Amino acid sequence: MSGNTFGKLFSVTTFGESHGVALGAIVDGCPPGIEISEQALQVELDRRRPGSSRHTTQRKEADEVKILSGVFEGKTTGTSIGLLIENTDQRSKDYSKIKDQFRPAHADYTYHHKYGHRDYRGGGRSSARETAMRVAAGAIAKKVLAGHGIQVRGYMSQLGPIEIDFKSWKSVEQNAFFCPDPDRVAELEAYMDQLRRDQDSIGAEITVIADGVPVGLGEPVFDRLDAELAHGLMSINAVKGIEIGAGFKSVTQRGSEHRDELTPEGFLSNQAGGILGGISSGQPIVARIALKPTSSITTPGRSIDVHGAPVEVITKGRHDPCVGIRATPIAEAMMAITLLDHLLRHRGQNGDVSVGTPKLGQR
Amino acid sequence: MSGNTFGKLFSVTTFGESHGVALGAIVDGCPPGIEISEQALQVELDRRRPGSSRHTTQRKEADEVKILSGVFEGKTTGTSIGLLIENTDQRSKDYSKIKDQFRPAHADYTYHHKYGHRDYRGGGRSSARETAMRVAAGAIAKKVLAGHGIQVRGYMSQLGPIEIDFKSWKSVEQNAFFCPDPDRVAELEAYMDQLRRDQDSIGAEITVIADGVPVGLGEPVFDRLDAELAHGLMSINAVKGIEIGAGFKSVTQRGSEHRDELTPEGFLSNQAGGILGGISSGQPIVARIALKPTSSITTPGRSIDVHGAPVEVITKGRHDPCVGIRATPIAEAMMAITLLDHLLRHRGQNGDVSVGTPKLGQR
Amino acid sequence: MSGNTFGKLFSVTTFGESHGVALGAIVDGCPPGIEISEQALQVELDRRRPGSSRHTTQRKEADEVKILSGVFEGKTTGTSIGLLIENTDQRSKDYSKIKDQFRPAHADYTYHHKYGHRDYRGGGRSSARETAMRVAAGAIAKKVLAGHGIQVRGYMSQLGPIEIDFKSWKSVEQNAFFCPDPDRVAELEAYMDQLRRDQDSIGAEITVIADGVPVGLGEPVFDRLDAELAHGLMSINAVKGIEIGAGFKSVTQRGSEHRDELTPEGFLSNQAGGILGGISSGQPIVARIALKPTSSITTPGRSIDVHGAPVEVITKGRHDPCVGIRATPIAEAMMAITLLDHLLRHRGQNGDVSVGTPKLGQR
Amino acid sequence: MSGNTFGKLFSVTTFGESHGVALGAIVDGCPPGIEISEQALQVELDRRRPGSSRHTTQRKEADEVKILSGVFEGKTTGTSIGLLIENTDQRSKDYSKIKDQFRPAHADYTYHHKYGHRDYRGGGRSSARETAMRVAAGAIAKKVLAGHGIQVRGYMSQLGPIEIDFKSWKSVEQNAFFCPDPDRVAELEAYMDQLRRDQDSIGAEITVIADGVPVGLGEPVFDRLDAELAHGLMSINAVKGIEIGAGFKSVTQRGSEHRDELTPEGFLSNQAGGILGGISSGQPIVARIALKPTSSITTPGRSIDVHGAPVEVITKGRHDPCVGIRATPIAEAMMAITLLDHLLRHRGQNGDVSVGTPKLGQR
Repeated sequence: MSGNTFGKLFSVTTFGESHGVALGAIVDGCPPGIEISEQALQVELDRRRPGSSRHTTQRKEADEVKILSGVFEGKTTGTSIGLLIENTDQRSKDYSKIKDQFRPAHADYTYHHKYGHRDYRGGGRSSARETAMRVAAGAIAKKVLAGHGIQVRGYMSQLGPIEIDFKSWKSVEQNAFFCPDPDRVAELEAYMDQLRRDQDSIGAEITVIADGVPVGLGEPVFDRLDAELAHGLMSINAVKGIEIGAGFKSVTQRGSEHRDELTPEGFLSNQAGGILGGISSGQPIVARIALKPTSSITTPGRSIDVHGAPVEVITKGRHDPCVGIRATPIAEAMMAITLLDHLLRHRGQNGDVSVGTPKLGQR
Repeated sequence: MSGNTFGKLFSVTTFGESHGVALGAIVDGCPPGIEISEQALQVELDRRRPGSSRHTTQRKEADEVKILSGVFEGKTTGTSIGLLIENTDQRSKDYSKIKDQFRPAHADYTYHHKYGHRDYRGGGRSSARETAMRVAAGAIAKKVLAGHGIQVRGYMSQLGPIEIDFKSWKSVEQNAFFCPDPDRVAELEAYMDQLRRDQDSIGAEITVIADGVPVGLGEPVFDRLDAELAHGLMSINAVKGIEIGAGFKSVTQRGSEHRDELTPEGFLSNQAGGILGGISSGQPIVARIALKPTSSITTPGRSIDVHGAPVEVITKGRHDPCVGIRATPIAEAMMAITLLDHLLRHRGQNGDVSVGTPKLGQR
Repeated sequence: MSGNTFGKLFSVTTFGESHGVALGAIVDGCPPGIEISEQALQVELDRRRPGSSRHTTQRKEADEVKILSGVFEGKTTGTSIGLLIENTDQRSKDYSKIKDQFRPAHADYTYHHKYGHRDYRGGGRSSARETAMRVAAGAIAKKVLAGHGIQVRGYMSQLGPIEIDFKSWKSVEQNAFFCPDPDRVAELEAYMDQLRRDQDSIGAEITVIADGVPVGLGEPVFDRLDAELAHGLMSINAVKGIEIGAGFKSVTQRGSEHRDELTPEGFLSNQAGGILGGISSGQPIVARIALKPTSSITTPGRSIDVHGAPVEVITKGRHDPCVGIRATPIAEAMMAITLLDHLLRHRGQNGDVSVGTPKLGQR
Repeated sequence: MSGNTFGKLFSVTTFGESHGVALGAIVDGCPPGIEISEQALQVELDRRRPGSSRHTTQRKEADEVKILSGVFEGKTTGTSIGLLIENTDQRSKDYSKIKDQFRPAHADYTYHHKYGHRDYRGGGRSSARETAMRVAAGAIAKKVLAGHGIQVRGYMSQLGPIEIDFKSWKSVEQNAFFCPDPDRVAELEAYMDQLRRDQDSIGAEITVIADGVPVGLGEPVFDRLDAELAHGLMSINAVKGIEIGAGFKSVTQRGSEHRDELTPEGFLSNQAGGILGGISSGQPIVARIALKPTSSITTPGRSIDVHGAPVEVITKGRHDPCVGIRATPIAEAMMAITLLDHLLRHRGQNGDVSVGTPKLGQR
């Protein structure tokens, strides 16, 4: 219930530092009787795994997840699920020289001041490595959601200046970028190669979509579905912006343009991104997140050390030049966890009646 | 702890429908010994009050807030604070004809399907009228924060197509738009007048800034300060997007451009928006929100009724043609509540040491 | 989510001081479509109301509850329910002389040291008057539970030295003591009359029973049903002990004696009090609470004032010589709230399957 | 935030089944800079460890705890602490025959009906084995509390019919019973030997005391310190009753007898058990718990199987004939966790002022 737990009925609590012994999570509130295997979780983890292409960190982590409890004879028992990933490729020596320095735009500075004592190796708890456990927990959520006909998928919709139109879900799984247009992959690769030569990093935008969500999920006024989605997505490392549906485009839209008209056959558009008044409308939930460029670059930058003296910082080590590239599975995981938590909360308050009942219209 | 509570140590729970008897809130966890008066809360409520200009709803609500508990002899006692605003200008007849219709882009549809039974008068619980209690609770949070040298202020940074540069905080309080540039107010008024003639509505963007925030607020990994801010801000009616610092601009930024370099005198820029790794950096916290155009317009729109039959909807009644105009105090309130909750949580875990201690650099 | 909220899915948040303007509560997470009226809540409040017999405080409070939101056309809408009781009979002058003194065994001392600033009138927030809102919220919970065939009832099982065997529920509602044996009422009255002459107060024991609870409520390992019941019941003013089923008798019981054997027709005994492993077994839930004698007596006692100087304290004012007499409706309320919260949580995680399904055995 | 988390600012979330791969916990919100080692945790775990005397289960578990995160260079970092104990001595074959039977007074019946699918081996999640993680987490809490001068200790105050007066803390650590009187140990051993011959089990009472607690911990009205203690203690397997201070004795006490009078030198008695109005008074916190006899005995008992058919159950395997014998460290752990959570919550709302300041009186 402190800072490392997300969700109320279906909740995920995590621990683990980049260069610690292991990462772990406790998934609580999972319905019983769901088929879950380490293999199934591993499929999701492998989508996020470092070292899988030359465009991501060269750290080689097997990221093998173990299920320690809560699953018996292949099915969940309804009790808390313990998950563990042991760290195997920690090269702490890479980081020792920056032990007393604050890398610009990194959490070094704030962790140091908040806690006084920090694990500086590889960013410690602030490392994106923590997100592995979100993906593992999200895989469980996805499995439960699938039983309710809900599917959560994401893709890279922009890499730096390169905007990418959605072409197919099939394409997304066939390249290292989660790029939904197979014809743009070469362009992305060329961009990343140039970026590496420039010793720089770049931001990205990820779009996440949930299909099959019934009408009714979300608890106004503070635990609106969009508010909790924003919470979950913004809690991902490097995320600086969230949009639901039309997002910032709504600033310049007129009401006559933004409103999604309804007919007996369903909504005529989806500017709302599937959420009205904080409650799912039965249309697809559409969210976008902006990820900043990683701050770990080899181009020298000005900073200070823990004593306040100026230093020049060059971040070596094995880093992602675009954290957005591996962010798609993480964003999917946070959306899946949020949706499942809300599905259970809705069912708790309302019973099963409205969830899954035929919708007046559809999307 | 259900959907109508926000915050963990400093928490706000609200109730109330647009046309019900009253709106209310319970503010829990407020530190004792803080001077609070109904007059002070009223000042903030009056900033949000409907009917204060011709550009907002013509509903005339006094919005007089009463403190029912938790304050004794002018000071908080540390016990829960009860707040109440009685509704005085409910004209339910305005709404009776749309009782069985779903207004497009409104929460009618989702409330109907989620709950089965709803107060259709004026949007009931889904009405923006609910935000009055947030402003009242936020006024208490602002007062406590002021004692820690923290100030939360907001302004309109865009109205439809009109982008507004920040000129002065003084200007913000001198016009009905919370416009920070006195030279642009006439333009905004002209735009709104034309909009009314067009029988349409428009979106807006609000910027909220917190100054004086110490290093250290925020609880990774899920209760990051930015994640909770996103939760709080996205829970405001009509918000469809959130940015922290560079926000969506970070998508096209390079790492060398985005990173805020540090010198012994402080940070050289604030692309981060005052939050690194989910923890406040001591720089100003900067957030922006996108508000959609209100869906209550008099231009006819296609919809269906509760039986699924097609209807044409014209929303009469007294509505804001731009909900963004009155959103500034609400956004400030949510940021203030979030910051105070995190200040108390930080103090709980860490003691007073790091909060408020001299920062290495500054903003 | 601070100290004044109880429950996770069905939650109750309260405010209000003994001599403040009003008491209030927000009931959140109540299922929609439940018939609720002020009259129905009033029936429960009247059972707890002061001044209803000569054996309780002579304070005359109408305790008229108003529903301010969440109920529309007689039925709950699923949104948060605001409840209010205005204080009408506050005679603050009664208390002014003890403003700087700590009454022995009272919360004066601890509130003073915790908060620094306190409403000393009538105990302020620490007064048992606060429990009126629990009874109102509990009345809502009881109504929802009734729809699931669950009934929560309590009675006085001991008044000081007088142990009372259960005879009938009918008797409970026919005397001021909630005494389940009509033949013992005269004895209780005589005891209380003597006590008043002695200028003293006395403890009591209340038994609360829930019938019709399905198998399956309770969330191990920390949110066990018995653990949450203990939390709720111990949070009632003056409660110093809790027992479930055999309670402290289990200390001297052997396993062969304590265990409730099972047959195809059901359990053969109920030493467990209806809870096994923290989960309801389908048998009646049985809890007992010990209430201490009120500390407000007119027999002089030694104490100190806020400056640490010794004083002699005589508590005048209008007090209950046995707080246990009015505690039955409060204990019922806390059990009802706990059960409903757990029913909703169970339904959220597990769906409706196991709740309410035919039980193998019976109670 | 589901059922397996305890505490709000300092929180403990656990997982693990009796015969699963491992037990684990995530301790969140621990203040940074606290010296913690696996060795120190092991000391507490060894106090609870099975197989350490002939009077407890003969299961031989090393119960070696590993710290997986949150501690760096010997000190806590303020981030979540991962703890793990691998199960090494699971003999599942012992339990296979009772797979389809419900042992009387066991959680088999309720887990089966709640979840449908359960790990029947050794009680699965309902096994007392789960409490090992509470002890590990409690050891961390104790360490932090020690830094505030707070010490939590417990002892066995009754074993079946044998009441034990407190003689010394030294004695408690010198026998397998946590018996505070060295002269009574032989009697306890003889009693247990006879019990084994009788193939039966017995209940017990444990007393837990916290010394050095400052005035001010506890958050009325629902999160009172006593209410949360009751929650934590009742969540321990086999606990059926809780008392604070005078407990059930208060039922027959008069106000003049129960009230703890105050003098400039401090309180003259401690009937309150160190808690007034739900807030610690600065006196020792005194709680007692009643533990039922274990239900796993070899004396045959009547029960049914999952199909509803009658069966005779004899529970073989390796069980504690008195679960109370090993309960002292667990009760201490739950009290320590509760106190630390409240110390942090108090510090969050009130700052450090009142905690630890000289008390007017003292105990």
